[in-house]
Amino acid sequence: MLKYNFSAGPCVLPQEVFKKAADAVLDFNDLSILEISHRSKDFVQVMEQAQSLAFEHLGLQDKGYKALFLGGGASMQFLMCAYNLLENKAAYLNTGTWSAKAIKEAKMFGEVIEVASSKDSNYNHIPKSYSVPSDVDYFHFQTNNTIFGTQLQETPSVEVPIVCDMSSDIFSRQRDFDKYDLIYAGAQKNMGPAGATLVVVKEEILGKVSRSIPSMLDYKVHISKDSMFNTPPVFPIYVSMLTMQWLKDNGGISWIEELNNKKAGLIYNEIDRNPLFEGFVTDKADRSKMNATFVLKDEAHKDAFDQLWKDAGINGLNGHRSVGGYRASMYNALSVEAVETLVSVMQELERKG
Amino acid sequence: MLKYNFSAGPCVLPQEVFKKAADAVLDFNDLSILEISHRSKDFVQVMEQAQSLAFEHLGLQDKGYKALFLGGGASMQFLMCAYNLLENKAAYLNTGTWSAKAIKEAKMFGEVIEVASSKDSNYNHIPKSYSVPSDVDYFHFQTNNTIFGTQLQETPSVEVPIVCDMSSDIFSRQRDFDKYDLIYAGAQKNMGPAGATLVVVKEEILGKVSRSIPSMLDYKVHISKDSMFNTPPVFPIYVSMLTMQWLKDNGGISWIEELNNKKAGLIYNEIDRNPLFEGFVTDKADRSKMNATFVLKDEAHKDAFDQLWKDAGINGLNGHRSVGGYRASMYNALSVEAVETLVSVMQELERKG
Repeated sequence: MLKYNFSAGPCVLPQEVFKKAADAVLDFNDLSILEISHRSKDFVQVMEQAQSLAFEHLGLQDKGYKALFLGGGASMQFLMCAYNLLENKAAYLNTGTWSAKAIKEAKMFGEVIEVASSKDSNYNHIPKSYSVPSDVDYFHFQTNNTIFGTQLQETPSVEVPIVCDMSSDIFSRQRDFDKYDLIYAGAQKNMGPAGATLVVVKEEILGKVSRSIPSMLDYKVHISKDSMFNTPPVFPIYVSMLTMQWLKDNGGISWIEELNNKKAGLIYNEIDRNPLFEGFVTDKADRSKMNATFVLKDEAHKDAFDQLWKDAGINGLNGHRSVGGYRASMYNALSVEAVETLVSVMQELERKG
Repeated sequence: MLKYNFSAGPCVLPQEVFKKAADAVLDFNDLSILEISHRSKDFVQVMEQAQSLAFEHLGLQDKGYKALFLGGGASMQFLMCAYNLLENKAAYLNTGTWSAKAIKEAKMFGEVIEVASSKDSNYNHIPKSYSVPSDVDYFHFQTNNTIFGTQLQETPSVEVPIVCDMSSDIFSRQRDFDKYDLIYAGAQKNMGPAGATLVVVKEEILGKVSRSIPSMLDYKVHISKDSMFNTPPVFPIYVSMLTMQWLKDNGGISWIEELNNKKAGLIYNEIDRNPLFEGFVTDKADRSKMNATFVLKDEAHKDAFDQLWKDAGINGLNGHRSVGGYRASMYNALSVEAVETLVSVMQELERKG
């Protein structure tokens, strides 16, 4: 087996989740989980448990939010949030490829004000000085940018509803989640396997646009059917539930945040110390604790480095083509040992180089 | 274990598919299939294999079609087909709950001509005498209606493009698939588990509407990225591929059609013979080979019958609330033995009654 999966997503999940998921494929209360009805008592319980765990991790119980587990991916949310919320204009922060895609979709539904963008510097930092007009329908941003390895550390202070794509760092750290009005996240980083998307939305922000909304794109329709308007992606939701349960059983977000800080500390310390490497992100405060992007200062070391990490059982370390170099994705289920192994490989390269 | 799963969907799949799927969750070329990148060589191969098997089963290779595996369910296709194809007006045949839902979504995009409907008789037959105007953008219908147990036996002869929801009988029987311009099907009957949707579309019918289409709803966008515009539902697609492979390995659609005819023959023969039961569908020619709907003539036998089939290891036999009574869903992976068991339970009730 490959021991250390640094894939940017879909990505590593806890081994015990894989075991439970495999068991359920063979036998889940006398049937395979792949053949049970989504209307069965057993699956309704899975859905309720998944919703309850999401609320618990985010601290959003009894605060007027609803949780949905939909198919379609976060890319569908680029469209859905605008369809449901954009009446006149919306503000977007452009911090990467996914922001740009979200902006593109939103423009079909109203005016989009790009409050700031780091595009001209290939998204190597998060723009800081910008203001969000008080008359927009909402302000949209991503908390973490997998491709470029940047992460928003603080929740911006604005007076309009906040709509946020947390696909790549949800459940990895504490945030003031109750400052957000709509949070969405594709499952395939810290929540579960590909095929499910979490939407947590404050009900009071819905129902304010004048356009009619197709049923499958209408948050209110999904809420009215408790996330069962149509057949939901049963197995991806089940595995997401298992993964959220694993997080809870081990100590929740405060536990994982400490581990994630430790992993990020290890890798960034080595990137800064090791004379062969340099980080991609210019402002260290913007460095992502989920995805560390870095390059070799001298490409001549590439073959040797690639051989070393592959020999060490590391997988998925190549950077995205927009950045090049390397990307160490360190989602919740990636062990400290994995990062320590990567660091020792980087040190070995230095010794040999 | 429950031995005979008659669920209407998600539903029984082949046991060997469950075994292979469980194995892949634990180890798929040295990683779990739940943690592999959708851009990995291994998954690209799964996607290509799934597309190739779909074409092979439908006999649509090299005929100008593209195959997509999307998230979101067939309900999303109610919306997408209209978004992509409905410029002025479209014709719809109303044969059940799902037809009505498809019509509702289509009306947001243009004029909908309901060419015929069996709604007034609670959809207990398929309307026969209707004509489809030659100036509509397309003609839409469902081949099989799970809730009511009706099935279209012949492909209607029309001069406009045919858009068809085959969710509940795809890969169960031969049809003139090349008469169809767009076929879609939620996976969770004969194709795989919930969470993936197959769309097979003739490319030449696309790109003719004047509206702009959001990326995630645009067939052309998905085609341009070979069904990888966004992260696809990796595991549901993998299990769909396994299920289509199982069908091929055993003899393909001609093999399964014979078995499905046999199963349908067994149950309908008993419904007609047994004085305690009667079928729901009025025109026997419209009876579905996937879902046999029937009721007890005398509700007094209900408790005894329910006890008998549950004791026999049968699951999922209750009818949909719109019809009541019973529904025996006999998808591809349901064994002849399962139907024989149900028939003997019906005969036992007759003896005891």
